[in-house]
Amino acid sequence: MAHVLGQNQYGKAENRIVRVRRDSGRHEIKDLNVSVSLRGAFDDVHLTGSNANCLPTDSTKNTVYAFAKQYGIESAEGFAALLARHFVEHTERGVVHSARIRVEEYGWERIRTADRAAEAGDSGHSFVRSGQEVRTTEVLYDGDRFRVVSGLKDLVVMNTTDSEFWGYLKDRYTTLRESYDRILATQVTARWAFDFHGRDGRPQPEWNHSYQEVRRHLLEAFADTYSYSLQQTLHAMGTRVLDHRAEVDEVRLELPNKHHFLVDLAPFGLKNENEVYFAADRMYGLIEGTVHREGVTPVIPVS
Amino acid sequence: MAHVLGQNQYGKAENRIVRVRRDSGRHEIKDLNVSVSLRGAFDDVHLTGSNANCLPTDSTKNTVYAFAKQYGIESAEGFAALLARHFVEHTERGVVHSARIRVEEYGWERIRTADRAAEAGDSGHSFVRSGQEVRTTEVLYDGDRFRVVSGLKDLVVMNTTDSEFWGYLKDRYTTLRESYDRILATQVTARWAFDFHGRDGRPQPEWNHSYQEVRRHLLEAFADTYSYSLQQTLHAMGTRVLDHRAEVDEVRLELPNKHHFLVDLAPFGLKNENEVYFAADRMYGLIEGTVHREGVTPVIPVS
Amino acid sequence: MAHVLGQNQYGKAENRIVRVRRDSGRHEIKDLNVSVSLRGAFDDVHLTGSNANCLPTDSTKNTVYAFAKQYGIESAEGFAALLARHFVEHTERGVVHSARIRVEEYGWERIRTADRAAEAGDSGHSFVRSGQEVRTTEVLYDGDRFRVVSGLKDLVVMNTTDSEFWGYLKDRYTTLRESYDRILATQVTARWAFDFHGRDGRPQPEWNHSYQEVRRHLLEAFADTYSYSLQQTLHAMGTRVLDHRAEVDEVRLELPNKHHFLVDLAPFGLKNENEVYFAADRMYGLIEGTVHREGVTPVIPVS
Amino acid sequence: MAHVLGQNQYGKAENRIVRVRRDSGRHEIKDLNVSVSLRGAFDDVHLTGSNANCLPTDSTKNTVYAFAKQYGIESAEGFAALLARHFVEHTERGVVHSARIRVEEYGWERIRTADRAAEAGDSGHSFVRSGQEVRTTEVLYDGDRFRVVSGLKDLVVMNTTDSEFWGYLKDRYTTLRESYDRILATQVTARWAFDFHGRDGRPQPEWNHSYQEVRRHLLEAFADTYSYSLQQTLHAMGTRVLDHRAEVDEVRLELPNKHHFLVDLAPFGLKNENEVYFAADRMYGLIEGTVHREGVTPVIPVS
Repeated sequence: MAHVLGQNQYGKAENRIVRVRRDSGRHEIKDLNVSVSLRGAFDDVHLTGSNANCLPTDSTKNTVYAFAKQYGIESAEGFAALLARHFVEHTERGVVHSARIRVEEYGWERIRTADRAAEAGDSGHSFVRSGQEVRTTEVLYDGDRFRVVSGLKDLVVMNTTDSEFWGYLKDRYTTLRESYDRILATQVTARWAFDFHGRDGRPQPEWNHSYQEVRRHLLEAFADTYSYSLQQTLHAMGTRVLDHRAEVDEVRLELPNKHHFLVDLAPFGLKNENEVYFAADRMYGLIEGTVHREGVTPVIPVS
Repeated sequence: MAHVLGQNQYGKAENRIVRVRRDSGRHEIKDLNVSVSLRGAFDDVHLTGSNANCLPTDSTKNTVYAFAKQYGIESAEGFAALLARHFVEHTERGVVHSARIRVEEYGWERIRTADRAAEAGDSGHSFVRSGQEVRTTEVLYDGDRFRVVSGLKDLVVMNTTDSEFWGYLKDRYTTLRESYDRILATQVTARWAFDFHGRDGRPQPEWNHSYQEVRRHLLEAFADTYSYSLQQTLHAMGTRVLDHRAEVDEVRLELPNKHHFLVDLAPFGLKNENEVYFAADRMYGLIEGTVHREGVTPVIPVS
Repeated sequence: MAHVLGQNQYGKAENRIVRVRRDSGRHEIKDLNVSVSLRGAFDDVHLTGSNANCLPTDSTKNTVYAFAKQYGIESAEGFAALLARHFVEHTERGVVHSARIRVEEYGWERIRTADRAAEAGDSGHSFVRSGQEVRTTEVLYDGDRFRVVSGLKDLVVMNTTDSEFWGYLKDRYTTLRESYDRILATQVTARWAFDFHGRDGRPQPEWNHSYQEVRRHLLEAFADTYSYSLQQTLHAMGTRVLDHRAEVDEVRLELPNKHHFLVDLAPFGLKNENEVYFAADRMYGLIEGTVHREGVTPVIPVS
Repeated sequence: MAHVLGQNQYGKAENRIVRVRRDSGRHEIKDLNVSVSLRGAFDDVHLTGSNANCLPTDSTKNTVYAFAKQYGIESAEGFAALLARHFVEHTERGVVHSARIRVEEYGWERIRTADRAAEAGDSGHSFVRSGQEVRTTEVLYDGDRFRVVSGLKDLVVMNTTDSEFWGYLKDRYTTLRESYDRILATQVTARWAFDFHGRDGRPQPEWNHSYQEVRRHLLEAFADTYSYSLQQTLHAMGTRVLDHRAEVDEVRLELPNKHHFLVDLAPFGLKNENEVYFAADRMYGLIEGTVHREGVTPVIPVS
């Protein structure tokens, strides 16, 4: 039976780039990890050994660094869109039909020093990596429209109360005891899709502001929700974002339930009044879900 | 604007299980990491705080361990199929519409000892983890059909010659020098879909034998292909599997190009005749693609 | 030739514990990873198979959790000292001669929410993991004295200027070009030993305050030092701590030079004026050193 | 109070190198990760900003690659010894007083292919990484003597029976139930010191053969020992090496007890006859110890 070459893509992954703006004594930095994937007329590359249509992954890497110089990096999304458009519109012979750019961004804060506090409040060129979450984006451009899905990962949060879990379905394998006051902790992976496609002269969202606001709403919804399940918290987080950020059409969350088990101290004559927990690694509950606006077709894939 | 709860799923992830068969003095072991995801009538769980339809993730974990005792683990695929069917067909109120079971399997070899070599050739109960690759499978069951996608990851391979890369498209960002003899190395992630849906009385493939054969063909195709690009090698690996394994309909490969850069030793008066390489971590080329039989609709998603 | 059992130790490692203080509506949390190592009269355990002197590692784990309830966790150092003393002084038959407790502590911040800002400024029970650095301590108690070595790891810092490297020794393998303005970045691992041995009624340092101050001085010294080598920066960081913190006798730093290479953009007609860098993973310079007070015998081992 | 610069060292860490021998159609490869640390007259580098005595870490990296070409890599130990001697004896002004070279070595096997089996049995230039354990060595040279400590890590082994644990010391925190048949599994980290100092014309051991034999004895001792504690197994492994390998003076083992907990299936009406285990990640017992020849002063440090 004949074979067919199906979906394929290639590019240089994980280009680590730090871009410094030195316009003033107060430097600004962007710290990104950029991955390029090109899709297009690459059948011959696979089938015949001809590389005539193959732009080397090395060239895509060079483009990332050159663009960082030429255009600066205002936001991960804006930079990714520039790159995606370039590969589709400027690669010779039209061999690139669509380009997907993924970016991880690592946050940095200024180091505040006592000496300089008297002057400027902090150092103009000294930074400490924040480490809290990694900001992400994925921009796909097909020559006609942009699809932008931004997000974050590795944001670890915990409520030490206001979480219950009971009244659940019980089958013959159910031994879990109901809980009326438990720790709820999770490591948030969130992705959200924008109502922006780059047509009709509609301006790009203010990506950085949007990111900070979405992040804030996710955190606040986690903190404010009195929870009867992690699913309920997930839904509250997603809807909170949609309620407050008109530029977002769809939110997908992956929330591992980082179990904190109450330790049984009775054998030692002690009563554990929700004070001492064992933080487990594996196995873990994994709750995933999408909330989107009515009438919108979800685009964020299931992991 | 109204919100909609979209695709959602939940379950217990990464249940680490070791199953020992002790029927004889020669024990047999299976070492798995099993992740359960259930999809179904879970709107209320998200929206109202009612858990009446929520089978606890803890119960899904218990099921994994109980099934390992009751049914044994003949293969990762067979075990996953048993679990998937159970959750769909036996969860009360029909709340589970489909179940996805993912499995990682870690290989072990027997420890050969000198003392026992005289008798049985090796120990009957002593093992060393092989560590070469991790075997994977994902079984999705919706009450009607099974979809089985098996695979492997972390299989690192290298050809020290018979690899070239030249004649490629050059744009203004191209600086790469052509190569007529390079190291080609990659860390194989492969997934392949089976022509098996569990209907029509068609028997399940012999999963373990099939796995060993697919793995062998992947390795052989990598070794035997004189390569003009990693894309060409990818295609050769995929087609080799389809040519030899009738039970497989589709193969998807993700091949990071583990760059080995020839070190410039000229400053030290030495000539590097393809002998000394720097093995780089990042950035790396990433080549991904699907090969499938004609007429078959690919089911393996793009990562 | 006869064999001798040399240094040996055992215990339960990586006990993950979260301790919640719920005295008021504003909860307080401590998130630790505690590892116990006992040294003592364990020859028979190794040699004869008799476990009469072997306190199970499981019991040491239970002790960690029970002590967290009984005594609370005011600081990592104080908690470790309590545990170490217990194992030495209260294990039956005097089999434990010394105990070493290692702790990693993960920091958490309160989640600030708009709703609650009007009232209390932040949530009383909602937290986000800070992720910046991991605080560490190691307490060794031998029945007579305590040796406390605290520290931190994974604190990533960067200066985008005020760093040079030139005038170095050149051998026949030297090709590096001198730099008069480079990025200096490192991931700080620091350990510092206290002038505290638990004798003579000398009170324990205020561990948490001390930690915050040492950390601050490390950051400030990194930011304030105009650097001619990472060694020089290391020395400045160590001395700054000794200058300001009388309770610290010795500081050891491990500073990987997280290389940021200036990308050559000349082939694309661009001039890189210290703006675009490639952040490399490996290989990396590794600079390690100790600074201690005169007359003090260093106790922190070389990694 | 005055400060003193104490122990310090620096160099380039984690130089990843692949060395190919192409003398015949059957290529040979060595895949190493080499870390250099130099100790010596580096006070000024730390104190004054003068780099006159500072050989750049970049030069040490270049040396690694150049030596791989000039001398080949027969064994990790031999290569490390060459490098260590070079840095001490040939760095200008005698600034390097001692050099420590650490090496990790990754194993590769040939890919066997059906086509070529007819001819040569396997491919001459195609390899698959074995992944089982990482071989390690550390060579320290001070201008007079060599100290060689070799080892391995990440070797995971399991006995599914012939392991008991009972009769242990019980304190008020002991709840563990005695076991008369348990899984014993560990991830072996082993280091062993050689009776070789490079003086007196004594020849170097055959490093590669020695490694294979030590590894074999470790595995066999693990498999053959009927165990009453992991400590007992540790001791058996160490003594087995000393009994069989005259070139080894001292063995240190770090054995995390990779707990496999028997799952309680009674709630489901099932009896678990040592067949179904939960493989836990953390917390874990950690057993460490040294066995050495009488009269020898141990040199391997406690982790």
